[in-house]
Amino acid sequence: MTSNLDQLKQILADIFDLNRINAVLGWDQQTYMPQGGSEDRGNQISLLSRLSHETFTSKKVGELLGALKDEEKQLDPESNDACLIRQTRHDYLKATLVPTEWVAEFSQVTSTAQDTWVAARPLSDFAAFRPYLEKIVEMRKQYSGFFKPYDHIYDPQLDDFEPGLKTAEVKAIFNELRPQQVDLLKQISAKPQVDDSFLQVPYNEQKQWDFGVEVITAFGYDWKRGRQDRSAHPFTTSFGSGDVRITTRFDKLGIASALFGTMHECGHALYDQGIPKELSRSPLHDGASMAFHESQSRMWENLVGRSLPFWSQFYGKLQNTFPTELGEIPLDRFYKGINKVTPSLIRTEADEATYNLHIMLRLELEIAMLEGSLAVKDLPEAWNKRSQDYLGIIPPNNRDGCMQDIHWSFGGFGYFPTYALGNLVSLQLWECILRDIPDLEKQIAAGKFSGLLAWLRENVHKHGHKFEPQILIQKITGSKIDPNPYIRYLKRKFGEIYSL
Amino acid sequence: MTSNLDQLKQILADIFDLNRINAVLGWDQQTYMPQGGSEDRGNQISLLSRLSHETFTSKKVGELLGALKDEEKQLDPESNDACLIRQTRHDYLKATLVPTEWVAEFSQVTSTAQDTWVAARPLSDFAAFRPYLEKIVEMRKQYSGFFKPYDHIYDPQLDDFEPGLKTAEVKAIFNELRPQQVDLLKQISAKPQVDDSFLQVPYNEQKQWDFGVEVITAFGYDWKRGRQDRSAHPFTTSFGSGDVRITTRFDKLGIASALFGTMHECGHALYDQGIPKELSRSPLHDGASMAFHESQSRMWENLVGRSLPFWSQFYGKLQNTFPTELGEIPLDRFYKGINKVTPSLIRTEADEATYNLHIMLRLELEIAMLEGSLAVKDLPEAWNKRSQDYLGIIPPNNRDGCMQDIHWSFGGFGYFPTYALGNLVSLQLWECILRDIPDLEKQIAAGKFSGLLAWLRENVHKHGHKFEPQILIQKITGSKIDPNPYIRYLKRKFGEIYSL
Repeated sequence: MTSNLDQLKQILADIFDLNRINAVLGWDQQTYMPQGGSEDRGNQISLLSRLSHETFTSKKVGELLGALKDEEKQLDPESNDACLIRQTRHDYLKATLVPTEWVAEFSQVTSTAQDTWVAARPLSDFAAFRPYLEKIVEMRKQYSGFFKPYDHIYDPQLDDFEPGLKTAEVKAIFNELRPQQVDLLKQISAKPQVDDSFLQVPYNEQKQWDFGVEVITAFGYDWKRGRQDRSAHPFTTSFGSGDVRITTRFDKLGIASALFGTMHECGHALYDQGIPKELSRSPLHDGASMAFHESQSRMWENLVGRSLPFWSQFYGKLQNTFPTELGEIPLDRFYKGINKVTPSLIRTEADEATYNLHIMLRLELEIAMLEGSLAVKDLPEAWNKRSQDYLGIIPPNNRDGCMQDIHWSFGGFGYFPTYALGNLVSLQLWECILRDIPDLEKQIAAGKFSGLLAWLRENVHKHGHKFEPQILIQKITGSKIDPNPYIRYLKRKFGEIYSL
Repeated sequence: MTSNLDQLKQILADIFDLNRINAVLGWDQQTYMPQGGSEDRGNQISLLSRLSHETFTSKKVGELLGALKDEEKQLDPESNDACLIRQTRHDYLKATLVPTEWVAEFSQVTSTAQDTWVAARPLSDFAAFRPYLEKIVEMRKQYSGFFKPYDHIYDPQLDDFEPGLKTAEVKAIFNELRPQQVDLLKQISAKPQVDDSFLQVPYNEQKQWDFGVEVITAFGYDWKRGRQDRSAHPFTTSFGSGDVRITTRFDKLGIASALFGTMHECGHALYDQGIPKELSRSPLHDGASMAFHESQSRMWENLVGRSLPFWSQFYGKLQNTFPTELGEIPLDRFYKGINKVTPSLIRTEADEATYNLHIMLRLELEIAMLEGSLAVKDLPEAWNKRSQDYLGIIPPNNRDGCMQDIHWSFGGFGYFPTYALGNLVSLQLWECILRDIPDLEKQIAAGKFSGLLAWLRENVHKHGHKFEPQILIQKITGSKIDPNPYIRYLKRKFGEIYSL
């Protein structure tokens, strides 16, 4: 007779497979699908989503979870089985507390809202988008309502991406971070700007592709368990740890988008490739949280890829690849150029010193809308005010202001903070790694990344989705999410570049 | 309240989607999947197959079919709804008469048999493969047994690919065809051979690709609803009529494999792209049968692509593309070269005049094994005897003899004859087309294919899977499957080429 746990695992394996099949469909849709395939693809994706949801929220799963209560208490709480049951219980509760009718309505509302946003954004037409955003905010409030009681109305939204993390914790973290980042930016703005004109010229695409491949091969990306393709928006997708794919894109000018984008996606992919096979086909076969995932992508992109040690090894190769564009540019100028700090309107183009400010701006507005302290109609004004306060610039229009991101149009509340938290986590981990591998910078300067990757495998990747992010970061570093390592890093790095 | 028919259609739409999703997974597996993805992909494909089978063989489908009996009688038997119910009833009966245990065992046996075949074939080791083939033949006999009473033990196997077609009919067709093809081959063999040495040199791959694209674009392949990629074995796959993809491959020498392969797959794809949207997401959204599908691929590959009118338009372009290889070769020599007849050991490399002989050889042995008149142990000898009789050559080993095809190792009995029947059907259709479009050859010589495609859309494609192949061919041509048009074609074409 099959045990309750084995029955549960079998159901979860099917759900895992259904979700990964959907990921294959999504990958194909964004890389190779001809336009005529849209309608059928929509039906296919929606069928798999329905089957996955129905299977997971079935009574059977609830019964098995109930029947496992006693058994669970006997298990080592850090064992795979205990974590599996705990995570499944958490996800099952969340999935079953939300009425099916709400899910259906929300899906319909956000589908229309996205279409409206796509049409209204180029025209900066907030008035057209506003009624949809109002409806979405209303429904996100309802969503939190399904999980009452909560400490804060934003908690259930945040929990979707950062299990267990509380709004109060995030507010405290960002309240400590914000004034110091704003102050740093003011100091930088008072200094002479660095020159990056050599990045504002066209670079051959195929050579960019080849160089990127060389870099991430050195990082340790396993091509037998992955591949790279082109897409309009770069992403990483996992069909199981044996097949983790990344995509990239090329800008007309410069190399930053493709090169740092490739490193970024590689960071995500190394995480997914590093999740142990024993966690396969279960909800534990995933990253700890979005912030943890972002910590990996930002680490390889920024702490490695935008560092002086890295370029002391790779810059000669890059110069040989692009002799016309970079032959005359010394390493020091190149390094400063790729780390240029400019307060800008657009989040996705922001540098390391300003990126978190974009996030904090959004988070505060998102929370205020849910709390009811900010009416949707007042969003453009509130956005512009904060943009002035944090970044020192006021958007000339809503297109590049409060309508710039797609997230609110698909109802993705709770997601934004994970981007900034990922930066913070990356530095907390980095300080630990430097303690454990004192010559890490030397290794990087020698083009050796195996020590770094092995550390991440052992300390981060191997845990998969077993622990909540605050528990995992404490386990690894001894403290919860803490902005100070990141503040120290920014001050040191940009202090040198801008002679502060 | 949803009607019984609507309920049935909804279930069939889900099954359609599940099967097409599986096709996406299969396409990816054969084009882009990294090797590390195999294990997870296997799980994904097997899950979807299981869900599709479980959904289709559910009691619910049986009940709906039962409840629809009266309604069905009121319908025009040629209406979409009547055809849908009839086809579903046919497929449901077949799917539910086979016990699940048999399916599971057969899947296991053929999986091991295939692995064994892969290992044993290079060694010509029939002894290693023999016990698996014996088991497979035994199980194929059992399979037919589930459908008793039947006229012939081979009928249920054939019906899987050619619904409604009887073994007696196929035997009669091939008995008429065989002696005439054998005789034609003898006449050709007595004549001086044509020269195709210019096809035995390397051709640039990208130029082959581009030329192939130009040709099938002219044929009418809709790139907004499809794409071409590379794979080890060329195939066509449909994810719905909005996304029908083909693949191709390149040989080290020559252009035939890629060029005629691309035309062949395009023929399949034009069929799939041409099935009306109103049949979408149902079992009617498919070709009439394998033979009908093959009639389309062979028509575009051979009746168009290997014809003199076609090359009178395209040969100049091909010469411009490959001036070194073909600049000195006149059209007449090229035409004869691509139509060279050589009795060969390998079916997949066979020309138009010998291809059907390879098929008849296999069919007769396949039937004999099922009838019990041929023991598996005697297969190599029987194969070689027939090869001598039909083709005039004896395979030097089993690798290129009775072990050359993968089909028997995966238990694909009933499939082989469809290849030859497709050739016959293609000529029956062609004679009709020539009556309806008397200047067809002129159109082809002018590079115009829209008249031909429109005829196929109207007379073949629009019916999808509504009718059994014998009914459809009769509907279109006024007669059942008939070898004589094909015999006439072979005699005329090769009579000219070989001055018979």
